[in-house]
Amino acid sequence: MPAIRYELIKTCKQTGARLGRVHTPHGSFETPMFMPVGTLATVKTMAPEELKQMGADIILSNTYHLWLRPGEDIVEEAGGLHKFMNWDGSILTDSGGFQVFSLSDLRDIKEEGVHFRNHISGEKLFLSPEKAMHIQNSLGADIMMAFDECPPYPASHEYMKSSVERTSRWAERCLEAHQRPHDQGLFGIIQGGEYEDLRRQSAKDLISLDFPGYAIGGLSVGEPKDVMNRVLDFTTPLLPNDKARYLMGVGSPDSLIDGSIRGVDMFDCVLPTRIARNGTCMTSQGRLVVRNAKFARDFRPIDENCDCHTCRNYSRAYIRHLVKANETFGFRLTTYHNLYFLLKLMEQVRQAIREDRLGDFREEFFEQYGLNKPNAKNF
Amino acid sequence: MPAIRYELIKTCKQTGARLGRVHTPHGSFETPMFMPVGTLATVKTMAPEELKQMGADIILSNTYHLWLRPGEDIVEEAGGLHKFMNWDGSILTDSGGFQVFSLSDLRDIKEEGVHFRNHISGEKLFLSPEKAMHIQNSLGADIMMAFDECPPYPASHEYMKSSVERTSRWAERCLEAHQRPHDQGLFGIIQGGEYEDLRRQSAKDLISLDFPGYAIGGLSVGEPKDVMNRVLDFTTPLLPNDKARYLMGVGSPDSLIDGSIRGVDMFDCVLPTRIARNGTCMTSQGRLVVRNAKFARDFRPIDENCDCHTCRNYSRAYIRHLVKANETFGFRLTTYHNLYFLLKLMEQVRQAIREDRLGDFREEFFEQYGLNKPNAKNF
Repeated sequence: MPAIRYELIKTCKQTGARLGRVHTPHGSFETPMFMPVGTLATVKTMAPEELKQMGADIILSNTYHLWLRPGEDIVEEAGGLHKFMNWDGSILTDSGGFQVFSLSDLRDIKEEGVHFRNHISGEKLFLSPEKAMHIQNSLGADIMMAFDECPPYPASHEYMKSSVERTSRWAERCLEAHQRPHDQGLFGIIQGGEYEDLRRQSAKDLISLDFPGYAIGGLSVGEPKDVMNRVLDFTTPLLPNDKARYLMGVGSPDSLIDGSIRGVDMFDCVLPTRIARNGTCMTSQGRLVVRNAKFARDFRPIDENCDCHTCRNYSRAYIRHLVKANETFGFRLTTYHNLYFLLKLMEQVRQAIREDRLGDFREEFFEQYGLNKPNAKNF
Repeated sequence: MPAIRYELIKTCKQTGARLGRVHTPHGSFETPMFMPVGTLATVKTMAPEELKQMGADIILSNTYHLWLRPGEDIVEEAGGLHKFMNWDGSILTDSGGFQVFSLSDLRDIKEEGVHFRNHISGEKLFLSPEKAMHIQNSLGADIMMAFDECPPYPASHEYMKSSVERTSRWAERCLEAHQRPHDQGLFGIIQGGEYEDLRRQSAKDLISLDFPGYAIGGLSVGEPKDVMNRVLDFTTPLLPNDKARYLMGVGSPDSLIDGSIRGVDMFDCVLPTRIARNGTCMTSQGRLVVRNAKFARDFRPIDENCDCHTCRNYSRAYIRHLVKANETFGFRLTTYHNLYFLLKLMEQVRQAIREDRLGDFREEFFEQYGLNKPNAKNF
């Protein structure tokens, strides 16, 4: 029995979106699902109980960050990441690859791996498929990610081709280095940028290695939304129906819907938690910047259509006061609300798939936010 | 029926400490009690549910800070402080006097009140008995404090005498200005520094005004602990038995015990929450600085003798990691623990009074921490 199993429940007749369930050693969760990001073994400002309460069954944590602080050996000694952070739900760890490419300016990509500098101390470091597997095996997440190269957007076809080929070779090395296939599932990452032939090649290479799930990488790295959708249009059909599909780094409401329509099952992004710490909330009326002066005497909840703990108990005026005064509790309240908003959105997406009306739901949602207009602001 | 009522349950035969109950419009609480400080309408990092869970029935909030941010008018418009911050337990607000004297360098004390500068913006401000009452009536706490002068330590007898007399005149003006005696109780503040004759004079003046409770002010302002205890020794006997007694600004475990022994019922201090945000914890083995390197692989709880939520679920290693990485959740965990520690200590103090053995309890506690030794470090 593999550590990770994907169960397809039904396909939306209107869009082809998938309603499914992913089974992990720490329970199962329905898909499409959004995964809150807990970079340093904590979803910033939140307690595990709060994540449970809002309906998060799986969270993501970052291999690169935990490798540097506190060190994967300490997490392993604690009994693994679940025990270390007191989270008994599912966890996915990335491979560290994205951070190496996005956080480090000085990097040297070789066939054996990547030499780069620690973004905190400047110390020289080396990450490779084997090292990324070793760290992730020590952390012990339910789902691990293969170590890949995530090229910037745009990249030339020539560069992307050699990068995709290296990522395939690295994926094979990851599979070989993986020490705990019985209780940790390793997902491969399809790269190839905006090039259909390269996505096809990447998918073919990785599928031949038979991973229990596949991520679509290299999107949400600066390309326009229509490029992302076009890439998904030709990439998800390449993937097997009986494996989970994960679109990395995506968390804006419109892209969650558009990704689901194109057959994606899992998403993650720091967007909801990051903007929350700046006092920005996702609401059924679009973004609300709670520190604005106009909310000083606004005693309505952040979102009048929201039934989350924050909206049931606290006013815009109170949250504005806390955020302006830089009080932690304000950021707890906005973070809770934003994560709840996205988890609830995914619940609505799943319900719409059940009712074969995800296309209609998309229209209603985009209409409500004016996202269909030309030059519409991002959500 | 007065807004605030003190009920004496019993007196410790060994020490004279009082076990009692204070009744407020938002419930009642047993005394001696420690009140967590929620300066800006939030006990830093904590949610109201967490304060309830740890056994806090009353919290303190700061008039001066709320006056400046968000402004007492906004809190009033929200329906008062309880509703604004979603706290249905009791609240005590100070008068703003202490902050005027401790936060502002440029102050000019006149008979009508104090002219000073806003510690954030530098703007000129004026606080008087009438203004302090107006703000506190707008905030709507269960217990309000009279506007007093809190002279520095040491102060000359001459200065202190004229200050005490002004504080008495101000107390009378506070009583007159108080608009909501039916649902907010106003406490007088006994001043007089270390001078017995002045404490006597201050107590006599204030008791003649018949407040529903009396605070002992001007202590914990830099004087040695034995001075504090000596002042309490001659001050609490001056106070009526049927009114609550509140020692302002005291929160170190030894002083909570020594104050209780001298007949004090209520205490407040930022100490537990402030040191928590620096990663310092109060434990049954004394202070524990969790960011120390020696805790990196220490998977025991902060305090092995503690049954709080933090200690039941998280290790020193995890909390150290969070605190070192400046993660909010780390400060939530240390804050929760420290407040729980003091609330639990007060529960032990009350139990010892019930059993007429608070003197023995003090000996055991001081022995455990080496507080009886000459040159003992502060807890």
